[in-house]
Amino acid sequence: MRGPLLRTLVAAMALACAGSLLQHANAEDASSPTDHIADSRRDIAGLPEGQTPWWPSRYGADDQIGTLNEITPEVVAYAARLVHQGTVVDLGRTLDENTPKFPGRYWHQTVDVSAYFENLRRPDAVGKGWGKNQINWITEIQAGTFQVGTQLDSIGHIQIGDRFYNGWKARDVVESWGLNHFGMETVPPIVTRGVLLDIAAYKGVARLDKGYVITPEDVTETLKRQGITVHPGDAVLFHTGWGALWNVDNEQFLSGEPGPGMATVNWLYAKHIAVTGTDSWSIGPVPGEDPERPFLVPQTLYVKMGLFGLENLATEALAKQRVYEFLLVLTHGKTRGSTAAVVAPAAIF
Amino acid sequence: MRGPLLRTLVAAMALACAGSLLQHANAEDASSPTDHIADSRRDIAGLPEGQTPWWPSRYGADDQIGTLNEITPEVVAYAARLVHQGTVVDLGRTLDENTPKFPGRYWHQTVDVSAYFENLRRPDAVGKGWGKNQINWITEIQAGTFQVGTQLDSIGHIQIGDRFYNGWKARDVVESWGLNHFGMETVPPIVTRGVLLDIAAYKGVARLDKGYVITPEDVTETLKRQGITVHPGDAVLFHTGWGALWNVDNEQFLSGEPGPGMATVNWLYAKHIAVTGTDSWSIGPVPGEDPERPFLVPQTLYVKMGLFGLENLATEALAKQRVYEFLLVLTHGKTRGSTAAVVAPAAIF
Amino acid sequence: MRGPLLRTLVAAMALACAGSLLQHANAEDASSPTDHIADSRRDIAGLPEGQTPWWPSRYGADDQIGTLNEITPEVVAYAARLVHQGTVVDLGRTLDENTPKFPGRYWHQTVDVSAYFENLRRPDAVGKGWGKNQINWITEIQAGTFQVGTQLDSIGHIQIGDRFYNGWKARDVVESWGLNHFGMETVPPIVTRGVLLDIAAYKGVARLDKGYVITPEDVTETLKRQGITVHPGDAVLFHTGWGALWNVDNEQFLSGEPGPGMATVNWLYAKHIAVTGTDSWSIGPVPGEDPERPFLVPQTLYVKMGLFGLENLATEALAKQRVYEFLLVLTHGKTRGSTAAVVAPAAIF
Amino acid sequence: MRGPLLRTLVAAMALACAGSLLQHANAEDASSPTDHIADSRRDIAGLPEGQTPWWPSRYGADDQIGTLNEITPEVVAYAARLVHQGTVVDLGRTLDENTPKFPGRYWHQTVDVSAYFENLRRPDAVGKGWGKNQINWITEIQAGTFQVGTQLDSIGHIQIGDRFYNGWKARDVVESWGLNHFGMETVPPIVTRGVLLDIAAYKGVARLDKGYVITPEDVTETLKRQGITVHPGDAVLFHTGWGALWNVDNEQFLSGEPGPGMATVNWLYAKHIAVTGTDSWSIGPVPGEDPERPFLVPQTLYVKMGLFGLENLATEALAKQRVYEFLLVLTHGKTRGSTAAVVAPAAIF
Repeated sequence: MRGPLLRTLVAAMALACAGSLLQHANAEDASSPTDHIADSRRDIAGLPEGQTPWWPSRYGADDQIGTLNEITPEVVAYAARLVHQGTVVDLGRTLDENTPKFPGRYWHQTVDVSAYFENLRRPDAVGKGWGKNQINWITEIQAGTFQVGTQLDSIGHIQIGDRFYNGWKARDVVESWGLNHFGMETVPPIVTRGVLLDIAAYKGVARLDKGYVITPEDVTETLKRQGITVHPGDAVLFHTGWGALWNVDNEQFLSGEPGPGMATVNWLYAKHIAVTGTDSWSIGPVPGEDPERPFLVPQTLYVKMGLFGLENLATEALAKQRVYEFLLVLTHGKTRGSTAAVVAPAAIF
Repeated sequence: MRGPLLRTLVAAMALACAGSLLQHANAEDASSPTDHIADSRRDIAGLPEGQTPWWPSRYGADDQIGTLNEITPEVVAYAARLVHQGTVVDLGRTLDENTPKFPGRYWHQTVDVSAYFENLRRPDAVGKGWGKNQINWITEIQAGTFQVGTQLDSIGHIQIGDRFYNGWKARDVVESWGLNHFGMETVPPIVTRGVLLDIAAYKGVARLDKGYVITPEDVTETLKRQGITVHPGDAVLFHTGWGALWNVDNEQFLSGEPGPGMATVNWLYAKHIAVTGTDSWSIGPVPGEDPERPFLVPQTLYVKMGLFGLENLATEALAKQRVYEFLLVLTHGKTRGSTAAVVAPAAIF
Repeated sequence: MRGPLLRTLVAAMALACAGSLLQHANAEDASSPTDHIADSRRDIAGLPEGQTPWWPSRYGADDQIGTLNEITPEVVAYAARLVHQGTVVDLGRTLDENTPKFPGRYWHQTVDVSAYFENLRRPDAVGKGWGKNQINWITEIQAGTFQVGTQLDSIGHIQIGDRFYNGWKARDVVESWGLNHFGMETVPPIVTRGVLLDIAAYKGVARLDKGYVITPEDVTETLKRQGITVHPGDAVLFHTGWGALWNVDNEQFLSGEPGPGMATVNWLYAKHIAVTGTDSWSIGPVPGEDPERPFLVPQTLYVKMGLFGLENLATEALAKQRVYEFLLVLTHGKTRGSTAAVVAPAAIF
Repeated sequence: MRGPLLRTLVAAMALACAGSLLQHANAEDASSPTDHIADSRRDIAGLPEGQTPWWPSRYGADDQIGTLNEITPEVVAYAARLVHQGTVVDLGRTLDENTPKFPGRYWHQTVDVSAYFENLRRPDAVGKGWGKNQINWITEIQAGTFQVGTQLDSIGHIQIGDRFYNGWKARDVVESWGLNHFGMETVPPIVTRGVLLDIAAYKGVARLDKGYVITPEDVTETLKRQGITVHPGDAVLFHTGWGALWNVDNEQFLSGEPGPGMATVNWLYAKHIAVTGTDSWSIGPVPGEDPERPFLVPQTLYVKMGLFGLENLATEALAKQRVYEFLLVLTHGKTRGSTAAVVAPAAIF
């Protein structure tokens, strides 16, 4: 079932899928969590007006990793062969308390040097530390909302109403400690071919304007200009130039952004792209194409397509060196139930 | 100045190095931070008895990344060529509040679903969310000490007395928000050849005993058994079987561990290994070889050698599949001034 | 409208009240928050089966402080006259990370001694600190859910469905940073007559059993035995003996509790009591009187009555000294939008 | 008396003090923490130049509550008799993330409404909540450094070099989780006579200038103008008018402050005042009287005198009403080992 969203078919499949879930539920105790869960996906009531079910997903009714399914062993092996020089470029930005962020988001760190005092009280303290080797150590306390800095979102970060990717409802998924589906621990390491689209260079500007809508034509013309094509399983990253404002003019940086429009998002999905990403704070133009539908781009990517997104990428070094294809690697801390991870992907070529 | 630790030479070089630092300091304002810093490295007073300066390091007096210098572009390119099948194995464990940890360490996450309520108050709320697309989102708050779970330590995590790698003192390096040297933002993405040493298999056991000291002979015999050798810049990971206790018997897991002894650590350094790691909670046997010198192994690795270490690796899948060399990739969130990052490296082959 | 809940009358008043709110809303801009809020209180749909509106409250439709309205200046002045000896008894328990608490709740503190290092780098550092007075300081980082330890709940802590005291809905009240109504910053200092009811002594036991339901007869007989009566505006505290398990057997402590039953709660409300409290972790027996209605006691106290409750009080010193009436003072940190505060009330006599 | 180091006559004082400690230590194991602790107070080396030991304190070598010892039952009983009208004035300001604070300090709260989702999954969920009473609840996560907002400092917050009140050293007192001496759990409820000194009114200004040094003459003339005197055990609060800048012009608010000078501090101590406090962010003028001795006022109050201080008091309502003596009550959350508590004292008259 590859291709654009075929809504009527999806609805029919949802019913078929619900049937097997129901059978499964019948085999369980009537009050089991499975039963509740089955109900949510079967019951399609409460969708926004005109919205048909977007599940089961292209990757099956129980899938949690969406387009990362496109990264097959063949894709990985192909991508590894893109390494020639052995150059590694870091695509992550450093996170600290001054990083631009939105109201309600925060991140703070405090050093913990208490060992310098506690170790002196040990019976076998020597000089300034513990033991004849005088060991001491330092740690830190971090507290914050995450969803700040260079990050990989889980596809569970956004919903349509109270529905997630594959039709789960918030009542099925939300736990006090995080999400029981779609948490970052479910996201595998990402190792694939990376493609940088320097849309700013194609448009002949240092930085695309706020709200600029990147079109499929921009994408195909940029690919042509760069002499490459995209493959299923690729990570397609957009260089818009917007990242130059990071920590330079944070107010302007946060005031809006250029980004891929809905047509481009559909193009990415049709091309079986695994991951997308930008050098701005979200994916998609802000202000958006449809003022009545805020953040429609990431909502569509995550909830309907299961297409993963990276934000606040440091793409400038690649753009400057005109490196447009590379091995992209991204490993992240697997905190259970989280909707995002602070990351720093690497491009290797 | 590549080569094993030559302590008397190092002491002589420390004096030479201090000379140039002094000249540099003289050129600055008398009260500049540089001046303070130069003083610390020049002034070798206060070292533990019998301890000569271990700085400047093999990689220079100003170096912050230690043995990661061994990972040259050639090493990266060679490692990438180890990918044949395109299989990716995740070496990270999931972190949650039940993860085994030591007193004083903690990690806690709480979901934030406030958007489900706030969005309903927006003037353009529709149905259950914001806008006609009824968007909602979920984030989380994390708070904790880190230094928990599968992690990469910064070489700034441990000291000898109040001295770091390259001789910096705590008074030079500690800020309320973390470390101004050796923070995780200074650690580049790690992309190199990974080698797994299945010492447990070599010894014919499922799990090495607590306190078992892995010797250079264990290492060389295991390499012979596995039909491989080590190269400069490699990541050498030890499979001890200890990780099987993780989340199965956390009390026993934390009660001690097997690990590479001091002779093996010196062997690793002599071989110009870039990174080491284990499937236990620290590196080196606990109880240690010298009861008067606690945690001498990681202290030596980080402070004297600048050799990076990984803890709590999930090595069992590689050991089971008998995969002993692979492309190791490790990218981490770059939080400024942190002494560690929660990570999940990947082995690719 | 003093007296027990008169439900049909309340419903009628709710309509009357809603009328004036509506008029108010009409005078505002159509998309103002006030308009949304007015709607919630007017629209009584969605209440549990058989439940009629409990608003407007005895203290008016806009009231946020419930029974604290009973503490008039006369009550305060009367209470102050109960101080004869000038003895102060602390009714709070110390909070630390070992304090008994429920899943999802946590509290953790880490010391911050970074000033000991940073001050040494100041241009005017002298010896071990900053300036000729060598000043240093220490702070700490706290992180936690609160709702732990000796605490005063806000009446906004609990809801019936999604309805608060005075009929507000969660969609009106919840902000990402806390509650915009009923936060602890709205709760005034509490200064009133305190009454201790030693129900354990009345029953001739050291500790009431888990699930024991304290009845109005228990209360009135205990008052008679203690030779006192209650007055409007009093704080009525129950000594059940359950607090002796605190930090002694936390598992048993958390496994249930004795407490005032629904008839006693109604008695307290009819008597115009301002505050109640216990030496156990919640208010009301656990298991409760009605297994189909969990935590009905605090829900009724907070949501329907606006009657404030204190938990985990250290009542043993008062009980031992047979001090049954006193000046109760309780001041708390006013963190905006919080549903509780860690407190330590004092009894003065 | 273990070890030599008897340097001056003052060491003889330490000896007298140490005598009882030594006896205690002798009864313990030789390597007990008590033994270490005794050493620190006996060993007076390392004090700032010209500084003689300030311990044992006026209240004994083992005292932890300093001038709060002045609040005898007689003082409490006298203070309670100051209540005539029964009026309660709240002296605390609300704390939120916008509260003015210094670099390195932070406070953040996030609501936790996860119960609204989790309760729906319970087997006995009904409608929107848990049970037939459809109960739900809301909590919050707080994270921060405290030492923000209206607060009561512990006398352990500040040191001279590495010495606390009564001569303890940081190596004796600092634990990873806080202070094992002088934590807020050691501070009793404060119930005493409060005196407001409206220095601004005496000087005929709305707000004293930044750096204005309040002198003993200012104090005695203000007392005369207000027709009152001070008593041992009083809480003496200064109204400077500086608090009018709070949340109005936070930059100016934090840029400095007026406050009691060293002569006034000595006057307070000589008068056996128990607590002092101001409507500014610290106690004492900033810039201070001696530019080479930063924050000498609070350092002297806490470390040498053990005299407790309150910051960021909302004194304006009392000043406006010309209420100059009252019952002051202050109860605080007893978090173990903390150096401060967020508070909101109350004045009752």
